[in-house]
Amino acid sequence: MPVSVDTEAGTQVQTAYFMTEKPSISIPECIRKTRDGKPLSAAEIARLVRGASDGSIPDYQLSAWLMAVTLRGLTPAELQSLTSEMRNSGEQFDPSPLGKFAVDKHSTGGVGDKTSFIVAPIAAAAGLLVPMISGRALGHTGGTLDKLESVPNLRTRFNLEGMYRILERVGVCIVGQSETVVPADRKLYGLRDVTATVENPDLICASIMSKKLAAGLNGLVLDVKNGSGAFLKSNALVEFLAALMVSTGEAAGTRTVALLTDMSQPLGRMAGNAVEIIESVSILRNERHALNEDLRTLCITLAAWMLFLGDAVKTVEAGEAVAANMLATGDAYEVFCKMVNAQGGDPRSLEDPESLMKNAIRTKVRAMRRGYVAQMDCEKVGWAVQRLGAGRERAEDAVSAVAGLEMHVKLGGEVRSGEPLCTLFAEDANRFPEAERLLQEAIVIDEAAPPKRTLIGKIITKDNYQEILARPRPASA
Amino acid sequence: MPVSVDTEAGTQVQTAYFMTEKPSISIPECIRKTRDGKPLSAAEIARLVRGASDGSIPDYQLSAWLMAVTLRGLTPAELQSLTSEMRNSGEQFDPSPLGKFAVDKHSTGGVGDKTSFIVAPIAAAAGLLVPMISGRALGHTGGTLDKLESVPNLRTRFNLEGMYRILERVGVCIVGQSETVVPADRKLYGLRDVTATVENPDLICASIMSKKLAAGLNGLVLDVKNGSGAFLKSNALVEFLAALMVSTGEAAGTRTVALLTDMSQPLGRMAGNAVEIIESVSILRNERHALNEDLRTLCITLAAWMLFLGDAVKTVEAGEAVAANMLATGDAYEVFCKMVNAQGGDPRSLEDPESLMKNAIRTKVRAMRRGYVAQMDCEKVGWAVQRLGAGRERAEDAVSAVAGLEMHVKLGGEVRSGEPLCTLFAEDANRFPEAERLLQEAIVIDEAAPPKRTLIGKIITKDNYQEILARPRPASA
Repeated sequence: MPVSVDTEAGTQVQTAYFMTEKPSISIPECIRKTRDGKPLSAAEIARLVRGASDGSIPDYQLSAWLMAVTLRGLTPAELQSLTSEMRNSGEQFDPSPLGKFAVDKHSTGGVGDKTSFIVAPIAAAAGLLVPMISGRALGHTGGTLDKLESVPNLRTRFNLEGMYRILERVGVCIVGQSETVVPADRKLYGLRDVTATVENPDLICASIMSKKLAAGLNGLVLDVKNGSGAFLKSNALVEFLAALMVSTGEAAGTRTVALLTDMSQPLGRMAGNAVEIIESVSILRNERHALNEDLRTLCITLAAWMLFLGDAVKTVEAGEAVAANMLATGDAYEVFCKMVNAQGGDPRSLEDPESLMKNAIRTKVRAMRRGYVAQMDCEKVGWAVQRLGAGRERAEDAVSAVAGLEMHVKLGGEVRSGEPLCTLFAEDANRFPEAERLLQEAIVIDEAAPPKRTLIGKIITKDNYQEILARPRPASA
Repeated sequence: MPVSVDTEAGTQVQTAYFMTEKPSISIPECIRKTRDGKPLSAAEIARLVRGASDGSIPDYQLSAWLMAVTLRGLTPAELQSLTSEMRNSGEQFDPSPLGKFAVDKHSTGGVGDKTSFIVAPIAAAAGLLVPMISGRALGHTGGTLDKLESVPNLRTRFNLEGMYRILERVGVCIVGQSETVVPADRKLYGLRDVTATVENPDLICASIMSKKLAAGLNGLVLDVKNGSGAFLKSNALVEFLAALMVSTGEAAGTRTVALLTDMSQPLGRMAGNAVEIIESVSILRNERHALNEDLRTLCITLAAWMLFLGDAVKTVEAGEAVAANMLATGDAYEVFCKMVNAQGGDPRSLEDPESLMKNAIRTKVRAMRRGYVAQMDCEKVGWAVQRLGAGRERAEDAVSAVAGLEMHVKLGGEVRSGEPLCTLFAEDANRFPEAERLLQEAIVIDEAAPPKRTLIGKIITKDNYQEILARPRPASA
């Protein structure tokens, strides 16, 4: 113990003593530890996250650390700390005064993935609260917000209070991420994007889960995409990421489940912006179509898991019956219309698909030969949709509401030569040639029908994630 | 081939075509390749180095790439490209108009390592040209320039033309790195220092060799330190680094050899600034002392290799005889005095050691028990020297010319309790307690004498480096 003395020199000594007792955290030393595969303490992780949020750690140190994480990984304890510190880096949404079970569904990104517009209203219609915070088009995948904004006048920018008011009235909202929520992720994601440190399961998990946990969720259903249209192409990596997210959610007290689902072809019939709203409305109005039974089935299963996590049903099967019923009775569609209205859109526009597709010009992509649709490069289909105008090349670009495509075939379907494979929609015919080329490359027609695919694969819950995380870590790339 | 047409639209198409033919290099893609262990092309390495020199690549991308290199390594071809692009990033020295074989000796850093002051004059006295570009104190190791500047008025800052004029007159100079030489290393080293990317053999090799090759050397003798006082503590890593440097030098057309030498205790008797000049002068004047025979032997061997590379002798053994003779005749000392004079110092000050040690106060560190000097933590001895004032805590600090120590014992020596282990020199008695504590910890006295150490271990030349590089790469940390 230092002796307290009354001279100035004495005070200095005492200060120095305490400085030795509580040394400040050295950022190069943190980077070195991660580089060498040595775990960081919770305090060290907190320092890194704080430094990312408040700018007190220079970008070059953050990016060196991110690369060390990408190549060395994090321990489960480090990942928990990283996720919760990121969540704590900004404002958090507290849905508890609304007295309902707050649940969300999050997808890792696909082509034609419009399940949000269907499962969120189903869950809300069944009495759960769905504070859904969504994203924009990224790479070859569409953006939930970009799709929703194809409804004229509909807004997705709300602060946390605005979000709370919509939820109070309707029980569901689909809005953008507020800038005050998880600022650490905004910073780190910006760096990862330009330093080849995006494709790491720990960093993906912390980014997704910190934002989901900042919404104050009681339950979370993760739709983790697998196959040629998914961001992560390796099955082992997808499963590992799913297990990490379940582990992280459960550790933070959020009931979490992950469904590994097929993304080897676009989900349903439509991919783009307005076209996906049109298809979603069709499902919500309980219309059936052979080419989007996959979409309907996946929505019912995802909604069933949301209901099951929220104790609204005793089994997932019971949840499926409730979800199908919410479509049959029109209750889910009614909630969706209320949400559109609460967010500034006109629900009447939903009744008239053509009003959403004004200015759209069309063309058809036709089969060059007869045979079966044997294979799809679904990422390439996604790029075709983005090049039609549904996505952005630069962050500041506007997207085209009408850009998109309708698939007339699914994997395993039989086509004759010259028969249309898909219809393309755009505002400008100059968009068609590149998209057509991409689609002709992406859709493989062959003599033999491919084996039937399983839409919903492994389901990862609190009961089985440990066994996946106990396996050797899959390679990142 | 694009068809040349005369419309504006046609011109645009043609431009777009050529842009596709010669795509610009994507920095994130370069980082991704290194991250995934895929080699970069020479053009990609050139782009990275140019971006480091001209500031066109942001620090956060450079540091992510440096971390990827640290964890994944480079191929031999990538290392050659990196080194030569770094060399080409700035001004280069061309000694060829002087018509002599240009040779340098470079050490990876140690404690009491003053061989430069002895081997450079020996080689110059024997007719070789020695354009030696040296560094400052770094961490626990002393700086050749800091030591040399303890000679009053001596300057080490010269531009390439000033350096050329000294070499023309004296055949040898020991000067600092000009800011116009290898600016890419200045940038990258600054980042490595704060992002835990220093201790990687590829990056160390590129940093050292780019600077040495920029001096236009025909030959280079590397003194690669091994043991408790070396920067790299692992034998396998030291040997690997030495082989990388020999390979890189030879590939660039510079005859290169690396000697692995012992740094488990300070070299010779003295460690510090002026004290090392005093000891060097004593060796140059052919004075013998039992406690610095290691220094004399190492200098003669290093100088012999310089002479051998420069074809001044037929064998290394013949080179040793020539080197010893240069000390015996006083020719080397005469050259050293001329160099001191050419760099602005007064050679007469060398004759009077006390004039270099004005203002020095002294204290002795004594053995706490009797026994043999069984072990030294030579890095800790180096830190003691730096804390006496010989080194800097911040880059802008001045060093003390008189700070240092004299060892009265070497490993294996027998001491009685209370007998002095070393004498400390400083300008301020407040410097002594911490240095004393470090030295008492560093010097281990035990009942049994330690096994005798080999001063000069493996010698790596163009004939045996391949076999070392063919082994599995040693771990960095």
